[in-house]
Amino acid sequence: MGNVELIGFVAASLTTAAFIPQVYKAYKTKSVENISLTMYVVFFSGIVLWFIYGVYLDSWPMILSNGITALLALMVIIFKIKYK
Amino acid sequence: MGNVELIGFVAASLTTAAFIPQVYKAYKTKSVENISLTMYVVFFSGIVLWFIYGVYLDSWPMILSNGITALLALMVIIFKIKYK
Repeated sequence: MGNVELIGFVAASLTTAAFIPQVYKAYKTKSVENISLTMYVVFFSGIVLWFIYGVYLDSWPMILSNGITALLALMVIIFKIKYK
Repeated sequence: MGNVELIGFVAASLTTAAFIPQVYKAYKTKSVENISLTMYVVFFSGIVLWFIYGVYLDSWPMILSNGITALLALMVIIFKIKYK
């Protein structure tokens, strides 16, 4: 892996892992009032399209990272609906 | 623009625009308790790396969308610190 690919790999890892503390916080506190449902619905839709884009480009890092991000964003949406 | 590029374009627009309702909600309500600061700090760091990755790849859609997303994520971080 070259330096540029390494930057992309770390970037993908960070933007995917970032949602774990939010999922954990929402689950732990059961408080989601300040979280924007619109944000997560629009974001989830975009991530699904990034996933499809990755499938077309045959890019497994895009498929993997967006697949995981989609699941995490979906969990925030479920908590947002469940705990409102 | 082909169909695949169109999917990428719509994907980038959605994942960037998604943060606007969260920034607006945080600004309007001045309530940010349920938002994870860790999420936004990790996410912001990742987006800055995506931006740098885009500069290396000379990809203006990556530079533009990640530049805007970085600014929106930074605004959430500022509100999170300011309104806590």
